[in-house]
Amino acid sequence: FDTSPQAIRLYLLYNHWALKVLLYVFILVNLGLAIFEEPAVFPLPTWATMLLELLCVFVFTFRIVHYAKVIPRDKFWKDPKNICIIVILLLTLVDMIIYGALRAANCSIIRWSRVLRPLLLVNVTEGRQLRRAFRSIRNALPQIFNVFLLFMFSLLMFSLMALKLLGKRNLKTIEGLPYFNNYLEIVFDLYVLVTTANSPDVMMPAYNSHSMFTLFFIVYILINTYIFMSVFLAVVYNNYKKYLKEEVRQLVRAKRHKMARAFAVLQEQKEDGGQPMVTQANWNQLVRQVRPDISNGHRELLWHVCDDKNHGFIGKGAFVQLADLLNIEVITLKSRPHPLQSLFPKIYQSAPSRLLCRMVQHRAFVIAFDLIILVNAVFIGLDEENPLISNSEWVFLTLYVLEILLKLYVFEPKAFFSRYSFWNWFDTLIVVTALIATIINSALKSLVRYTSRQILDIVFILRVLRLLRVVDGFKRFRAIINTLIRIGPAILTFGQLIIVVFYIFAMVGMELFKHKVKFYEDSNDPAKAYCGNPLLNNTAFAQLNYCKNNFNNVVSSFILLVELTVVNQWHVLSSGFATVTHVSARIFFVIFHILVVIIIVNIFVAFVLEAFFVEYSMDKNDLQTSLEKKIKELE
Amino acid sequence: FDTSPQAIRLYLLYNHWALKVLLYVFILVNLGLAIFEEPAVFPLPTWATMLLELLCVFVFTFRIVHYAKVIPRDKFWKDPKNICIIVILLLTLVDMIIYGALRAANCSIIRWSRVLRPLLLVNVTEGRQLRRAFRSIRNALPQIFNVFLLFMFSLLMFSLMALKLLGKRNLKTIEGLPYFNNYLEIVFDLYVLVTTANSPDVMMPAYNSHSMFTLFFIVYILINTYIFMSVFLAVVYNNYKKYLKEEVRQLVRAKRHKMARAFAVLQEQKEDGGQPMVTQANWNQLVRQVRPDISNGHRELLWHVCDDKNHGFIGKGAFVQLADLLNIEVITLKSRPHPLQSLFPKIYQSAPSRLLCRMVQHRAFVIAFDLIILVNAVFIGLDEENPLISNSEWVFLTLYVLEILLKLYVFEPKAFFSRYSFWNWFDTLIVVTALIATIINSALKSLVRYTSRQILDIVFILRVLRLLRVVDGFKRFRAIINTLIRIGPAILTFGQLIIVVFYIFAMVGMELFKHKVKFYEDSNDPAKAYCGNPLLNNTAFAQLNYCKNNFNNVVSSFILLVELTVVNQWHVLSSGFATVTHVSARIFFVIFHILVVIIIVNIFVAFVLEAFFVEYSMDKNDLQTSLEKKIKELE
Repeated sequence: FDTSPQAIRLYLLYNHWALKVLLYVFILVNLGLAIFEEPAVFPLPTWATMLLELLCVFVFTFRIVHYAKVIPRDKFWKDPKNICIIVILLLTLVDMIIYGALRAANCSIIRWSRVLRPLLLVNVTEGRQLRRAFRSIRNALPQIFNVFLLFMFSLLMFSLMALKLLGKRNLKTIEGLPYFNNYLEIVFDLYVLVTTANSPDVMMPAYNSHSMFTLFFIVYILINTYIFMSVFLAVVYNNYKKYLKEEVRQLVRAKRHKMARAFAVLQEQKEDGGQPMVTQANWNQLVRQVRPDISNGHRELLWHVCDDKNHGFIGKGAFVQLADLLNIEVITLKSRPHPLQSLFPKIYQSAPSRLLCRMVQHRAFVIAFDLIILVNAVFIGLDEENPLISNSEWVFLTLYVLEILLKLYVFEPKAFFSRYSFWNWFDTLIVVTALIATIINSALKSLVRYTSRQILDIVFILRVLRLLRVVDGFKRFRAIINTLIRIGPAILTFGQLIIVVFYIFAMVGMELFKHKVKFYEDSNDPAKAYCGNPLLNNTAFAQLNYCKNNFNNVVSSFILLVELTVVNQWHVLSSGFATVTHVSARIFFVIFHILVVIIIVNIFVAFVLEAFFVEYSMDKNDLQTSLEKKIKELE
Repeated sequence: FDTSPQAIRLYLLYNHWALKVLLYVFILVNLGLAIFEEPAVFPLPTWATMLLELLCVFVFTFRIVHYAKVIPRDKFWKDPKNICIIVILLLTLVDMIIYGALRAANCSIIRWSRVLRPLLLVNVTEGRQLRRAFRSIRNALPQIFNVFLLFMFSLLMFSLMALKLLGKRNLKTIEGLPYFNNYLEIVFDLYVLVTTANSPDVMMPAYNSHSMFTLFFIVYILINTYIFMSVFLAVVYNNYKKYLKEEVRQLVRAKRHKMARAFAVLQEQKEDGGQPMVTQANWNQLVRQVRPDISNGHRELLWHVCDDKNHGFIGKGAFVQLADLLNIEVITLKSRPHPLQSLFPKIYQSAPSRLLCRMVQHRAFVIAFDLIILVNAVFIGLDEENPLISNSEWVFLTLYVLEILLKLYVFEPKAFFSRYSFWNWFDTLIVVTALIATIINSALKSLVRYTSRQILDIVFILRVLRLLRVVDGFKRFRAIINTLIRIGPAILTFGQLIIVVFYIFAMVGMELFKHKVKFYEDSNDPAKAYCGNPLLNNTAFAQLNYCKNNFNNVVSSFILLVELTVVNQWHVLSSGFATVTHVSARIFFVIFHILVVIIIVNIFVAFVLEAFFVEYSMDKNDLQTSLEKKIKELE
């Protein structure tokens, strides 16, 4: 690692937040190009999107070159993620050239490099969490594969049995087609049954012919839907936990190693030839540089935790803890005086003012406002065309604003809006936004005599969200809600994972199925009944009016993929697309189901489970307790 | 506890296996009465079923009186399960009298006491496992209830939002009905959406009007289907595990207490005033009485584990372990000589016989038969009308029988059919049954020129099951399959739980909905199109041909309840029954969903998960390892 001033400046520049934000903006732009490219939501000319993409590629190239300058050369080339980025950028360029050339020659061509775009999100240096998630999945694959093979074996066996039992009985499905007499069709139908999407319809012809046949289906569902799907969850959960643990262990080891090296730099030998140690002065200087935002009192506290025998120096063991200590958040709850008290001490300390404070802090105040919220809920449910109801909204808004103002009068504003008061933030945000939106809405209404539907929708949503606050009043819900709020940040990583996978499937799906199924806004168009594709005439897909579930642009592709993730009716959707192309199109949907529903959704479930198990068996770690002990001692 | 010889004889009689079996037979008869009672699968006259039920009640009364004689009086009356049984028996008698009287007066009346029948299964002394499962559920209820309240709050809030956002837009569902303009309907629709059963249909009208509305549904599904349902699983899993652990801990404590009392009875004081102890002679006598089936060698081994310093006596600590020691199964794998060897030593030891043994034990033998199975699978898939194919069955059967005979020639039969060789048992059973069934089938065919469909079905199933054996060949599957086999016994407890709950719902459902929906075998009957109830005309229920999903007898009720457990289309089924009775009938189906799908199915999933987690982190307990150490030492 080069330690010349120039190299360090370059390193600091590389890690500057503005450059990181810029990188993410360009990744978003790059991904967002799908909205404007053919098949587009908002079509732009090809040269415009190509130019934008070229700019993105240029920015990414610049960033990777910068990274190469910062990192030692051999380390750079050993890291697969850098090679991955370079290959992606090169492939993108090649694809753009081919596409541009063929486009100029008026040939139609597939933009295959779009599939690679989300991989950039995974491979940039900042995507650590996301890479970790992908690595966990990759590591879990062999075990998942074993279970999957066994599951497939069971599926094939049951299909064979179904063919033998039901194939020769001349049964008919509800559409009048022959029932269970083609092996591959049976395999597909029984695979769908595992997802429960065609239960009980797939069973009905057999059931109508004899009740005993239901036994076959019940055993099948028990083994494949309940047992095998639970085994998948168990395997995914177990592996995800195991590899995550392993990763965390490696991280901890790396951190300890680095801290030991820092200690070696800072250590001094004591005169009597004892252990090497770090003095308080050095330590203070270090902490001040690493975390300039920490207050003196807080730093003092941390030092006392490390040096709990008051030697004035600490050994290696205590020093290594520093990084963890800095990560523990100590909420400095100074009982600061209210700013009004310092401004108008007389008035703020007067008897009516104190009475007001006592009133607001009283339990009855909270209950009164919970009741107001409930009354509000009933009013929202009623018809807002009634002038009494619509005017009552102003009363409620006034009450809510009054509540916030009163609380601000009583509680110190900085404490009220501290980072940890989720509900205060939530409440104020909702009420203020609702106030502004309502004012705009009624201003528009009285001035232009026109009610904007969009603003009204926002007002409605805000009104209902306001009611959420009532939940905070119940202690029994608080543990659950706090766990859910704590899951929040990790869901972001998960959201990225989902977006990467969905984006790839959306790109492939758009190339395969674009414009095969059309949606007609005009309900009188006769083509609406078969989604503009005569092949769909009389299929379940058209009859259920699923025309808008198509791959004609990136937004509807994403919505369709969400519907496929929810699973229900996925066989109707997949059969629809198989009808307009080829029966092998089902493979696309089955692969999506295996990847997203069996693996990724299970990871999500495992993740929520884990968060709750941790919550239930919450043990604070050693450092946190020793910090708390110190705080108690010092009090 | 009375220790007179007479009381002990009574106690032993109470615990006699024949009486226990008799009790279970009568419980089964009592439950099975539902098949013959109105509405019946096979109708019997009322006096016959009443007489049978009276007999059952008499047997149960006798059993509980016997139990009261065995157990001290105060203990008997303190135990809620005894009081429960007495109350159930009295209520049953009262109901029978009322029913009999009103029946004689030709009034129609509800047999409400049938709901209580499965509770007998829970409350008999032998239903310990089942009672434990119910207790775990009851203990988990408060926490589940908290999450459920929060979930309901979220559901009501989202419904309010949906009403405000979509209610006034004059959208129409695919049936042309107004969309989302009735609050209670919205609540039901969104509850169904949580189960994913009406996705994406419930979303389509909003989606067709504007793509942005899908955001509402996506957020809803994310929060309610994915997060809340996972939280339910987490809560159920966590509580079930916690209370099960607590129960096990109490059991262990009780066992230790009882063993300590047994030690107090058997102890002798050593001459030099040391610790009290039990001599080997006393110990031997005890073990021989408790477990007469244990061999001398095995007993000797156990003694050496307890008395590992060869004192000739053991202290309290070692004595208390006895119960656990007796529970560990030691497989006595004596390398017994093959019986043929003792009968015909010359022939069995001859060169060709030895070559045969080596061949059968060779890896190639297994692979050869795996290949034969695969070829067999292909032949099964082909059309069995072809004489070549149908005759090939005889070849395969001969090959399989030959395989088993060869194995029996090589391996010692008792070892081959030991309790732990699951696959040997499975294999032999399947092949022998298939042989018999095939012979009967072809005998019938050649003699009477008539092929029984039932026997042919059995033959088909057996043929396919034979293929299962191939799985055992792969090492990677063995861990998974062994875990699944180990789950087996516990699934029995779970099956009882399911039967109890389903039986209660079936009884209630039959009283509420019997004969409202009819199934017509004759496809030409015009009433078939609306299930014999004009109210169902043009409903999804009738259009999907769900007429056989009804509560007209106990078998179809159970099948319907299974379909409801699988969830898909449950809203169509519930709406069908709501149409023929009253909209409040939906409550029955929602309660079933909450109880069975949210609680019981989650317990099942938790249960499979736990089995796999235990498998993955398998640690043998101390006793088992000390036993293994001893076996190693003695070798």
